[in-house]
Formats: sequence, structure tokens, C-alpha cells
Amino acid sequence: MAAATPTPNLRSSPYANGLDKNPANYVALSPLSFIERAAWVYPEHTAIVYGHLRQTWRVTYGRCRRLSSALSRLGIGAGDTVAAMLPNVPAMFEAHFGVPMCGAVLNTLNTRLDAEAIAFMLQHGEAKVLLTDREFAPVIGKALAMMGDRRPLVIEVEDDSAPAGDRLGEIDYEAFLESGDADGTWRLPADEWDAIALNYTSGTTGNPKGVVTHHRGAYLNAANNVIAWSLPHHPVYLWTLPMFHCNGWCFPWTMALVAGTSVCLRRVDPALIFPLVREHRVTHMCGAPIVYNMLINAPAAREGFGHVVKGLIAGAAPPAAVIEGCEAAGIELTHVYGLTEVYGPAAVCAKQESWAGQSAEERARLNGRQGVTYPLQQAVTVLDPDTMQPVPADGETIGEIFFRGNVVMKGYLKNPSATEEAFAGGWFHTGDLAVMHPDGYVKIKDRSKDIIISGGENISSIEVEDVLHRHPAVMLAAVVALPDAKWGEVPCAFVELKPGAQASEPELVEFCRGQLARFKVPKRVVFGELPKTSTGKIQKFQLRERVGSISAIE
Amino acid sequence: MAAATPTPNLRSSPYANGLDKNPANYVALSPLSFIERAAWVYPEHTAIVYGHLRQTWRVTYGRCRRLSSALSRLGIGAGDTVAAMLPNVPAMFEAHFGVPMCGAVLNTLNTRLDAEAIAFMLQHGEAKVLLTDREFAPVIGKALAMMGDRRPLVIEVEDDSAPAGDRLGEIDYEAFLESGDADGTWRLPADEWDAIALNYTSGTTGNPKGVVTHHRGAYLNAANNVIAWSLPHHPVYLWTLPMFHCNGWCFPWTMALVAGTSVCLRRVDPALIFPLVREHRVTHMCGAPIVYNMLINAPAAREGFGHVVKGLIAGAAPPAAVIEGCEAAGIELTHVYGLTEVYGPAAVCAKQESWAGQSAEERARLNGRQGVTYPLQQAVTVLDPDTMQPVPADGETIGEIFFRGNVVMKGYLKNPSATEEAFAGGWFHTGDLAVMHPDGYVKIKDRSKDIIISGGENISSIEVEDVLHRHPAVMLAAVVALPDAKWGEVPCAFVELKPGAQASEPELVEFCRGQLARFKVPKRVVFGELPKTSTGKIQKFQLRERVGSISAIE
Repeated sequence: MAAATPTPNLRSSPYANGLDKNPANYVALSPLSFIERAAWVYPEHTAIVYGHLRQTWRVTYGRCRRLSSALSRLGIGAGDTVAAMLPNVPAMFEAHFGVPMCGAVLNTLNTRLDAEAIAFMLQHGEAKVLLTDREFAPVIGKALAMMGDRRPLVIEVEDDSAPAGDRLGEIDYEAFLESGDADGTWRLPADEWDAIALNYTSGTTGNPKGVVTHHRGAYLNAANNVIAWSLPHHPVYLWTLPMFHCNGWCFPWTMALVAGTSVCLRRVDPALIFPLVREHRVTHMCGAPIVYNMLINAPAAREGFGHVVKGLIAGAAPPAAVIEGCEAAGIELTHVYGLTEVYGPAAVCAKQESWAGQSAEERARLNGRQGVTYPLQQAVTVLDPDTMQPVPADGETIGEIFFRGNVVMKGYLKNPSATEEAFAGGWFHTGDLAVMHPDGYVKIKDRSKDIIISGGENISSIEVEDVLHRHPAVMLAAVVALPDAKWGEVPCAFVELKPGAQASEPELVEFCRGQLARFKVPKRVVFGELPKTSTGKIQKFQLRERVGSISAIE
Repeated sequence: MAAATPTPNLRSSPYANGLDKNPANYVALSPLSFIERAAWVYPEHTAIVYGHLRQTWRVTYGRCRRLSSALSRLGIGAGDTVAAMLPNVPAMFEAHFGVPMCGAVLNTLNTRLDAEAIAFMLQHGEAKVLLTDREFAPVIGKALAMMGDRRPLVIEVEDDSAPAGDRLGEIDYEAFLESGDADGTWRLPADEWDAIALNYTSGTTGNPKGVVTHHRGAYLNAANNVIAWSLPHHPVYLWTLPMFHCNGWCFPWTMALVAGTSVCLRRVDPALIFPLVREHRVTHMCGAPIVYNMLINAPAAREGFGHVVKGLIAGAAPPAAVIEGCEAAGIELTHVYGLTEVYGPAAVCAKQESWAGQSAEERARLNGRQGVTYPLQQAVTVLDPDTMQPVPADGETIGEIFFRGNVVMKGYLKNPSATEEAFAGGWFHTGDLAVMHPDGYVKIKDRSKDIIISGGENISSIEVEDVLHRHPAVMLAAVVALPDAKWGEVPCAFVELKPGAQASEPELVEFCRGQLARFKVPKRVVFGELPKTSTGKIQKFQLRERVGSISAIE
């Protein structure tokens, strides 16, 4: 009898058998492993500084285990949501470990949102527990009232330095921790693809979308921050970036990986920051351009930090003035770019050795780009969104920025159509418009909705803002489209001046004329404070609404 | 009618649906991604220095793609083995990328092995292609002759600085690259669990075992090296560690991740190394204690390096004299520990801030320990191998070292029983005996009893004993490690002759030379009755004690 014919598709390979996964050689990637190691290797190193508090990694790990254990005893576990409406206080840091340790998903809430938005998120995310702070009692009280019997268990995080406010919690955070066990066992997720966090984005239209991220991505982006930024062991990190913003760009987990010290901070106030930086010898910080702008323009800046601080800065395009100002102030900036959907930073404007010899202005231009993919992200690119083909790397052809890799969300919670749309064609669609420079660096030209089309020509509002930011009197500038009978649209600038500074509309228009093609020069300049989001992003949609009335009175 | 009862086991979770993997958010982890990024971000940065060669990342990536493309055209792909018998030359570096790019598995061969061992590995690993160098022609020629028609395709890597030797290759490496396409497409592995490398260990018994590692682990350990060592961007790395040794501890991939410069080196010769370190401002290097010992004792050391060099050192226990000598010579050592089965370094003696104030002797003691788990490894521990329970952290109770995590091999090739044994109880069994110190640091007390480490290479005492047992005059032989100032350890044979038989020390040494690689040949032979247990087992611990007095009389 003939031997059985082997299946033709089955390639004979010595590696085909007996080399499977087992508990010794395969473990779910999770940033929770980092805190276990930090507490083992550096138990007495300071993990958290806050006011008079100095808390070691050993104690922090024990408190996170208590939190996890207490939540488990409540019946909270895999697939449940625990929300947090907290400033950058120690409990917020601990929630990044204690909540996922019991299998639950951490939903950090933007503390500047209104009650309606918060109520929507708590309901949509099905939060079973909410950690909150008296400062937000008015908003949270209203949101909870809207929820009726779907109200989560509320845990009050007490903080002596919080402003006065009602107590809404059924239980105090410290008492809740007491109900848990510091030696309680906890488990890594069953699957590294399991959700770790839920972060709502302020959608441009309709309801906010709930970005769900996973343990694998959080692990990789925590390592990414170390590699991209050459982070040493034991950095001293100042929490100027809200932890509710993409989980503080994954920095709670990064700090555990390098056993760093987190200097917590209720609010970004230069008068507080300068003494903190000096006292604790802060080495690293992150933030939006507005944070750095505040620092370099603060009276306290005159005395300086006394040492070099490294800063990650994100924003569609950090104004050249900020980049230059920080350089003068001893802040070594690195520009990163990302979105909530890619866990915060997912691209970095990696510095080239050859840039060192360039002029300050040229360096600001080079460093102000969105750059290249983060080391452990797979790809960032600029594609024609219609054909999904790369645009030529000519620095001129505008396309859309796309990401692909392991540091990309699972999808939007309970929103399959938005998820499908976001991932169409095998790439994550950012909605940001950009060009690819010949050196392979991405440069944002605008959000798709921010581009101004004048007489058929595209005008990047960012390019115009960059010029305005160079004017010595300008603190902040935002440029939007003003409807125009002849050109379709023309640029309109909204400008916030530096304290005590003065400038007139004709003066700024003239200033722009010197540096921009004529059609890009703002046709109107409006002075006043600019509307901003909690993270310091200018709310252009509000300006666009205002533009309607400006048009009307023209 | 009653509503359908929900399945009780199905937990209702908002995260249960619509959040799946797709090409935008899930990519196989592979270190091949690192070279693509290095070539994109730093195309003109030097990747390789060798003699007069300066090769950029762009060119290196192109050559790796050519290699992959040429191998593909030969029909080499997923599950095939490509072997390399090469010193630390550029082609060896390129093989770490070009071979897995086509889906194949890289099998680097220990260049100090004899023909029998090489023939065994080529046959057992089913190598389809072999890259070789004239220096090894005598051994490779003999090995190929033993293989008959199972001989792989031999590619000759020509090197002007190689010693004279026969050309065995059917084709020259450069000509082979020419047959490939520098713009050839290549793919990440279908699964990150796919094999990337095959490394044979000199097993303690019988034939060498083929350690199979995977893309996921290689990716993570490449990042591990960066995080554990706080590696900056663009380090200049000197190749004192053989790339055939656990893929150079994953450093070819690490160098791609941080766009470093690899200074290649055919052999470890202090007279060559000092000028190279000074000329290229080498910042980092790795090696066994013998490498550092050679450097600090070389005449050239008097002039020094001119700058601080950071070194990773591995070895059962780096002698305090080496640690202290390096400190004096401006080499900042960090001690790591690992095995081929865990991709090289998988534990690190992480420095504590408090050690800085200790005496040099105490620092050497503290730094000489095997330490704690590597940042992205999951765990290293000391367990009682019978109960698999942790030994008390008292610095005295001896147990066995175990590893667990994502940087642990897939298993041994075509050896399910050895694989099962190695992973029994959900941990990888190292066979190394150690204690756990109260501060959580592991300290090896004894290598597993049969292994001798000579110049960084493992020698199985059983292999040497097997040879001695073949001599007609030998009744019993036992080989143990004899401490040696130059090599760390050398084999010392204790021999009991057959009644009435005679043999001299030079005669037995000569006999071994005919059958063993030179470094495995006993440096001393001691005649006499061997101490045995009641059941006839040789009591090696007694011989080890005697070795002390032998050293003394040398």
C-alpha cells in the first residue's frame, strides 16, 4: 500500500512542532508588571512627591494592591469600568495600577468638562465606581443627579489642598484602601489585548467617542517613552500634563518602568512650578505649548530652574517662539505628536546631529515638525486619503496622516461604525492634514477642518499662526476661515497679547505681509483672550462660531 | 412568554464586542522593524565600521534586503535554516536582519567548535545555506565532508583581513547580494511567535541542544538592553562579544533600535581595541570577564581610552579584581546574567544609589551578583527545585535559578523531552545554583555541577570525560573546573587508570587534542583513585576541593 500523500501545503520545517507557548515562556504584556519590578528592585526609592508626602515604590505598590483588592471585594473585575475625576494627585497615579490590577478598565475624565458630558461618559462607559475630588463636586453632583439609579459607587479622594466643596462620596478613598489587602494577589490580564483604559475624545461632531486601549499597547508605549526620550533610571518627572489626557501619555507606567519620581501637581501654576523644579531637581516634564508658554513668560522665569529640564511638547505645531523661548530658558524640548487613539505620543521629531549647526530659527522650524514614527510604533505616514497611496515627499503635497502599529487603540467603545471608519484601509485615520518632507519627516499643515481655502489656494492656518507667534507682543494666535464673497474664504486671526503688551490690527497685518504670501495674510485681526480646552488647546470651533457674527457686521 | 434566560457564564461587558485586532492596530513584534526605522530616520548615520569600511544605515538596510531577496530567490523562506560560521564581521551583522527578513531562521555557529560538533548542528538544524569565512575552512571543510549529500549551499564571505584558508563557498557573499534586490519587499513574520534564531548550547549531557528563539522575544530583549542600560541614541558599540553567542545578546537588533554604530572586530586583541576605542570614541561594549581582564592587563591599558566606556559583563561571578580593575581603567561595568535560553542577558545587577558610598571591595561584592530581572523580562527567582517554592531571602539557602517571561526560548529544536524538562512547573530551569539575598538580588553559588566556563565558552565536563574514557588505559575520568587567571576556568581531569595500565599526562592531553576543540582540552591531568559514593557515583565536590590545592601548587 502506498504511503499517505502528505498535504501539499504543509511545508516540512524542523520548527513546526514542539515549540509552543507555555507559562514559562509567554506572559501577557502589561505595564502592571513594571510596578511589581519597581517595588522589588527599588522599594525605598521615592515614587510620589505631593505637598509634604514622600511615598516609596514599596508603599505605592502596596496601596495599588489594596485598591485592586478592595475593588475585587466589591465585585469589580474584568470588563468593568472604574472612572476617575481627579487632578494630578497621588490617587490618580495609583488608579493607573490599582484599577487594571483587578481586571477593570480605568476611565479618566477630563476635569474641565460640564455635567452633561460627564453624565454621558459615565453612562456610556457603564462606570461602576467613580473616584472624585471635592473641587469637582458641582459638576459631578449634577452629573450624578442626571444618572438616577445608574449612579456608580462614589469614592471621595480627600485632599487638604483641594478647594472647598461638597462631599459626594459614599466612602473615603483611604478608608476604601483599608478595606483591601496590601498583600492581596492580583493577576495580569488573561490576554494582553484586554482593555486597560477608556478615554473619551471631544468629538468634533456629536457625542464624544470612547477610545479603548489595551495592556499590550500601554506596555509598549511606556517603553516607547523611555527609548524615544533616552530616559535614564530614576528621572524626576513633573506632572504638568493631565493624567486624564491619554493616561498622561502613558507616563504613570513609564515612571514605574524606570522607577522614577512623580512630582504631583493639582494645577499648572508657574508660581508653584519653579520652586518645585528647583527643590526636587525635576529632570523631565510634558505638556502642550501653552504650558511652556506660561512658564517662559512667568515672572518667576527670570530666576530660572537652575538646571536643564527636558520637556516633551505636543501640539499641532508648537510656535517657533515657544521652541526658541524654552531653549533660552534651559528647557530642552523634544516635539512629539499623537492623539488619544494612539495612546498620546506616537511620533517624535527625532533630532538629527546636523541640526545642531543650524540657526535658532531653522532649528525651530526643523524641531517644530511632527516627525517620524515613535520607536516601537510601526508607522506614521502621509497618504492621499482617496487612493491610500503615499504623497510625494516634496514638503508640498498635502495628504492625511495615518498611523499603524501596536500602539493604536482597540477601537471606539460601542461604536462599530466609527471604529470601522477610523481603521478603513488598514490604517488609523487621524484627520490631520500634512506634508511629507524630503527627509521623511511629517509636518502638519492643519486639521482637515482648519484648512482655509482662499481663491482655490490652500492656506495652512498653522503657518499663519507661526508667523504671528513671532511678533513680540503676541502670546497666542489662532487663525480660522472667514467667509468672503470674493475669495470664498480668507484668514481671520484671533490674538491674545502678552500681559502689558500692545499691538494694533494694521501693525500685525503689516508684520505678516513681511513674511507671508499676500493671500495668506489675515484680513482681520481680533484681540482678546482665546477659548481653550482643559489641555490648553485652542477651541477653534468657538472662534469659527464667532467668525459668523464678524462676517455679519462687516 | 418569558424572555430568554441569558447564559449565566456570559458576563455582560461593554468591552466584549467590536474591539478586535486589525491590520491598523496589530503588527507582529519583530526586531526587523527596527532596521526599517533606522534607515528611514537616520539614513546617513554610520551603522557599521570595519577596517576602512564606513557603512550607513541606508546602505546596510539595502544590503540586508538584498540578502533576504537573494535567499528568497533560492527558495529559502519560513521555517528554513540559514547557518553562519563567521567572526564579528559586517556580513554577520547583516545576517541578523537579512536572514529573518525572508522568513528563515539564523543559526549562528560557535567558531571555536570542532568539525564533529559543527556537522551535528548543520545536520540537526537542517541548514539549507551556510555563510562561512576562510579562517574556518579546515573545520568547515571536514564538517561538510561528513555531511555528504546533506551539504548546504555554501556562501563565502571574503575578507581581506582573514587568515589564509581554502575557499569552500560555491558563491561569494558580495556576488550573492548582487543577485538580490535592494528594494526587494520583505515581510514581517506571519506570527511574532515564529522562530528567528537557532543557537546550540553545549549541553551537559549528550548532544548540543538547539535553542529556538522567536521574533517577539528578540524584539523585547533588544528594547530591554536599551532600558536596562539607559542606552542613548547613537551609541558606538564595540563588538568584543561574539555575535554567535546568543546573537550577541540581541545587540545587532538593539543597535538598529537606537541607530547605533557597530565597530566590528575579527578577534579580541587589546592591541587593536585601544586604538579603535579612541578613534571611534566607543561608548559601549559587552563581554565575558576574560575580555575585560585582557584589556585591563594589556600594555596598551597604560594610556587608557581617553574617555569612559560602559561595559556589560556576564559570567558566573566576575572576579572582584576585574570589577575593581575596570573601575580604575574608566570602564563602567554593569553585571548581567543569562543563558542562551533567555536570549543572553535576562537579569541585571541593577545599581542602587546607596552603593556609591561603599568601599571598592563592597561595591565589587554588590555588583558581582546576578541581580534582578531585566526590565522587560518577567521574573528571575531562586526556588527549591523539588518543591518549586522560593527559598528564603537569607543569602544562605541554596536553590536553583529559574526564569519566566517573554524573553524565554520557544524550546529545544526536535527535542520535546528536553523542552518539557526545561519548562517543568511553568519556569525555565537554568541548572544554576544560587541564593536569594535579603535585598532581592540573586547570587550564584555554583554553576550546575558539570559546566566549566573558559574564556566565556561553556565546556561540558561530560564531553571531555567521554573522550578520556575512550583511551585504553583510562578506567574512570572526572573533569572539573580549575580556576585560571587568564581564562577564568580551564578543565582539569582526574583519572583513575585501569589496573596495570599506564598513561602520562602529556599522552592524555595529546589524546584529547585529537578529538576536542583546543579550549576543551584538560590543562591538567591528576592520576589516582576517584572518590565515590556508596553507589559508585563520583563525588565531584571532593575533586573541586582538591583543585584548590592544585592551583596553589601551580
